[in-house]
Amino acid sequence: MNSELKVFFARARPAIDAALDALLPSENASPQRIHQAMRYSTLDGGKRIRPCLCVAAFAAYKKDWKPVLPIASAIELIHSYSLIHDDLPAMDDDDVRRGKPSCHKQFDEATAILAGDALLTLAFEALSKPKEFPGDRLLRVVAVLSAAAGTPGGMVAGQVMDLETEGKQVSGDQLSAIHRLKTGALIGAAVWIGAYLGGASEPDLANVKNYCDRIGLAFQVIDDILDATDGRNRDEGKATYPFLYGLEKSRGIARQLMADARQALAPLGERSKLLLAFCDYLENRKD
Amino acid sequence: MNSELKVFFARARPAIDAALDALLPSENASPQRIHQAMRYSTLDGGKRIRPCLCVAAFAAYKKDWKPVLPIASAIELIHSYSLIHDDLPAMDDDDVRRGKPSCHKQFDEATAILAGDALLTLAFEALSKPKEFPGDRLLRVVAVLSAAAGTPGGMVAGQVMDLETEGKQVSGDQLSAIHRLKTGALIGAAVWIGAYLGGASEPDLANVKNYCDRIGLAFQVIDDILDATDGRNRDEGKATYPFLYGLEKSRGIARQLMADARQALAPLGERSKLLLAFCDYLENRKD
Repeated sequence: MNSELKVFFARARPAIDAALDALLPSENASPQRIHQAMRYSTLDGGKRIRPCLCVAAFAAYKKDWKPVLPIASAIELIHSYSLIHDDLPAMDDDDVRRGKPSCHKQFDEATAILAGDALLTLAFEALSKPKEFPGDRLLRVVAVLSAAAGTPGGMVAGQVMDLETEGKQVSGDQLSAIHRLKTGALIGAAVWIGAYLGGASEPDLANVKNYCDRIGLAFQVIDDILDATDGRNRDEGKATYPFLYGLEKSRGIARQLMADARQALAPLGERSKLLLAFCDYLENRKD
Repeated sequence: MNSELKVFFARARPAIDAALDALLPSENASPQRIHQAMRYSTLDGGKRIRPCLCVAAFAAYKKDWKPVLPIASAIELIHSYSLIHDDLPAMDDDDVRRGKPSCHKQFDEATAILAGDALLTLAFEALSKPKEFPGDRLLRVVAVLSAAAGTPGGMVAGQVMDLETEGKQVSGDQLSAIHRLKTGALIGAAVWIGAYLGGASEPDLANVKNYCDRIGLAFQVIDDILDATDGRNRDEGKATYPFLYGLEKSRGIARQLMADARQALAPLGERSKLLLAFCDYLENRKD
């Protein structure tokens, strides 16, 4: 890994975990069980890719990235809620998440549903608090994040389409639409929000948007490839890039998307260093 | 019913339904099934008590209450999501809601979970759009509404406590805490947000807050009484005011809460007319 990115992760990840810890209700607060569940599923050693991308995009414009931590963490809360609900028996029915029992196995279904609801709600509460940004800007962040998380243009729409197409023939266009919505939208929002709050110019934001669109899809294509090669537990019957195109062509698609993402950042010059390093990191990750 | 309130309902309810219709994604937008579910469970002839209270509180300060409709409707979206998730098999397991199959019966569990998630997300998107209010004010609305909907101080906390105490001995203090959180918090937020966006003074807002706290609890006590007397289908094993105190004493508690609510509004003078009429309406409602 690029040494600058390594240093960044070493500083940003603990800071994000601390910000998440500060946002989440205490385990001692009543009703305790749901707060335990929210913490169990969020403070679990995740890689924090979305909040790290948000912080990195912010850091391209502002040296001190501490102010963006609660915003970046709010995005991780949404990711965390989506995993809890995706794992439910009525959805993907997964008993294990990141090597531990999934939320509804560790607690129970009702607690898992409500913990997800509470994390989603808390994400928006977290966006409403920071005093370092003007209200108008934070309100635009609420707009962008809610659109990226909801339907028809965001994560929930992607999850619905993913469930609907299970076991069915899926075209390449359909699969890229599912991946863009289910995974790409939130990743893209994370980067865009970081650059926006950092004060990026309108032309820079347009370039960042192009970068977002590419790495968001590339991220999930690479996930598909890892599922196919590492024996990871992707649910049977779900379409993937390797299933549709074969492994070699899928790798080529991911490489091309990452090349396009890098290209989109070219006008940003020096500012783009960390975000470019993210492309290498995501392209070469092993899990 | 007070004739002024009757006129108000006749104008406000269709306006709220139209605002909800405008906020909800079209049934023709892909993925259609979740948008159908969101509409099925929201546009169902509900009494719109929360958004009507929000509009009435706004109307105490501004003659033209159209600008507050998207905000009032966002609160109804949160109410709607909460009913869908409460009805799920893992929660209260109700097959019928307002005389129709509940969302997971009409569609399926996965769609119901995701429709709830999407309505909650859409509520915050709706708060981020109106141009008639300053960003700072809308951001404070996001803060107040998310706290009232989440945990530890809001609706999700109340639902958790309601599930946890099922079949157990519950004290009067516990029961009022559950009712305040599960029902009172969102009703209170609806009124407070209306007055706040209408431009109420700080002293008025403090009085409105006292009114909110009382009618929020009174609303659920009256609901308990209706359940006990009208043979409505309250889940067995859940504590209610009539179960704890008997019918007569419960009626007295509701009456006292409503008297206190009216009292809290006294300093508002003429402005309080509609909100006072709401006390009578809620006290005398039959369903």
